[in-house]
Amino acid sequence: MKCSGLLFPARLKMYCDRIRKKVINPKPKIKIKKISSSISHIDADNSIGFVAADIGIKEAIKNAKKTGMGLVAVKKSGHYGLSSFYAEQAVKNNLLVFCFTNAPAAIAPYGAKKSLFGTNPICFGAPTGKTPFILDASTSMINRGKIRRASKLGQKIPYGVALDKNGNITTDANKALKGTQLPIATFKGSGLAWMVDILSGVLTGSSHSGKTKDPFDDFSGPQNMGHLFITINPKIFSGNNFLKEMKKNISRIKKLPKAKGFKSILYPGERKNNTYRKNLNKDISIPPKILKELNDLHDK
Amino acid sequence: MKCSGLLFPARLKMYCDRIRKKVINPKPKIKIKKISSSISHIDADNSIGFVAADIGIKEAIKNAKKTGMGLVAVKKSGHYGLSSFYAEQAVKNNLLVFCFTNAPAAIAPYGAKKSLFGTNPICFGAPTGKTPFILDASTSMINRGKIRRASKLGQKIPYGVALDKNGNITTDANKALKGTQLPIATFKGSGLAWMVDILSGVLTGSSHSGKTKDPFDDFSGPQNMGHLFITINPKIFSGNNFLKEMKKNISRIKKLPKAKGFKSILYPGERKNNTYRKNLNKDISIPPKILKELNDLHDK
Repeated sequence: MKCSGLLFPARLKMYCDRIRKKVINPKPKIKIKKISSSISHIDADNSIGFVAADIGIKEAIKNAKKTGMGLVAVKKSGHYGLSSFYAEQAVKNNLLVFCFTNAPAAIAPYGAKKSLFGTNPICFGAPTGKTPFILDASTSMINRGKIRRASKLGQKIPYGVALDKNGNITTDANKALKGTQLPIATFKGSGLAWMVDILSGVLTGSSHSGKTKDPFDDFSGPQNMGHLFITINPKIFSGNNFLKEMKKNISRIKKLPKAKGFKSILYPGERKNNTYRKNLNKDISIPPKILKELNDLHDK
Repeated sequence: MKCSGLLFPARLKMYCDRIRKKVINPKPKIKIKKISSSISHIDADNSIGFVAADIGIKEAIKNAKKTGMGLVAVKKSGHYGLSSFYAEQAVKNNLLVFCFTNAPAAIAPYGAKKSLFGTNPICFGAPTGKTPFILDASTSMINRGKIRRASKLGQKIPYGVALDKNGNITTDANKALKGTQLPIATFKGSGLAWMVDILSGVLTGSSHSGKTKDPFDDFSGPQNMGHLFITINPKIFSGNNFLKEMKKNISRIKKLPKAKGFKSILYPGERKNNTYRKNLNKDISIPPKILKELNDLHDK
């Protein structure tokens, strides 16, 4: 089977389960409320997140192309996969972009011992003339998807990235899923996760402060997740100079003397893009446990 | 002498020196180029940063009040003090706000052993109905201002926040100023600092990738710093519901069980605000070294 990554296959069963249990709406009436030529508010009608977010980013791209900037809030949505997928679309349209989404409780706010914020990534993209600059940094020490995958595969997680339910550091993925993840940079990471909760949850009119349902474990209703896209056309400030300066920027940074153990300095998005290109023409082995899940789905 | 903090007095001599040496323009012709009713581009004509940034944030507030959002880029500016000062103005006008600024080289990009990025803070503000939510997180482990102050006062800096010029961890503030600071969360912090460099440097048409002059040490020309302000009126998406939901958000988070050593959970900006209120009616002792600098200025 050809496939560019494992995150989607590992989640496919969950999406199907949620549709069957009617907490994802497979035939949503997605409404786009145009607030101005720059600003839109989308009610996703509990659609699968991918569909709603794809409509959202395309709207944000259209708005920025027309007016120089776009602001699109999406409410009543669900888990949308990787933020970088949407950022890349905007960057390929020569725009700068922020993508924010909330997520089910995974990390404890600074000063608390219970999970509340999601892994709430900060995703930013910019055109470079070559491989897009795409920063997609979760505010947790490790992505929740990686812990889930380690749990599925019976693998350990690194030391110092998560606590068990009693507040002790654990390397056991299952215990980490029941406990809480640690934010990057203590109070700063906690503050950044809180910011993302406000932008994608409170501002969009979606769930927030720990009320986003876990798509794997909680079938009591739709997730009511929120996304926020901000797009900027760099030409409004510097015409065609933006790309010229971006190239200078990257080239100066890449020329810096390297730290021990580094042969080159990569900008955010470069490593992922290299891996993606390599993997495109390769078979990727899917772990038996996930393959069985996929085959079972097929049989249903 | 009454004073709410020490950062400004510690920098006053530098501002005066730069004006005397003609690398800050004390009589700038600041031009506001209106790109649309939401977007403005300001040429600060090498003004002192405070003045340019104050005009910038006021323009961003005006734009968001009129259209729902504002985007203001400032070029040819200088060091503008604390981002939170500008964020607070927007929040007091019931807006959400991002403030980005670049700064002289202080931290090494991930993979490099030489400083290039500034401490490039991520500053975000939101109204709460009470004390403003103001996150002002530098992407370095410690603020450069704190290292400068420690250096002036002959104090040590914490372990693990900076390297000397040979790449070794140091607690000596003077050695740290000649070496490089460490970014938060390794490659994630480095990526966030790079993002701020693009937004406030490349996008605004200002200095970037390590070309911002150090205001204390480099008098060879103006700093050509850039700032970017993004303002959003939350009413466009949720009317008066935003404040109601923000209150719920904060109240839920504050009620979480506390981690060991914590009596309460504070949101970003609360601690600073408490200190500010306490200090307003208190004398703050200014260290003799800084006081002498101020008196010397007075005598000139």
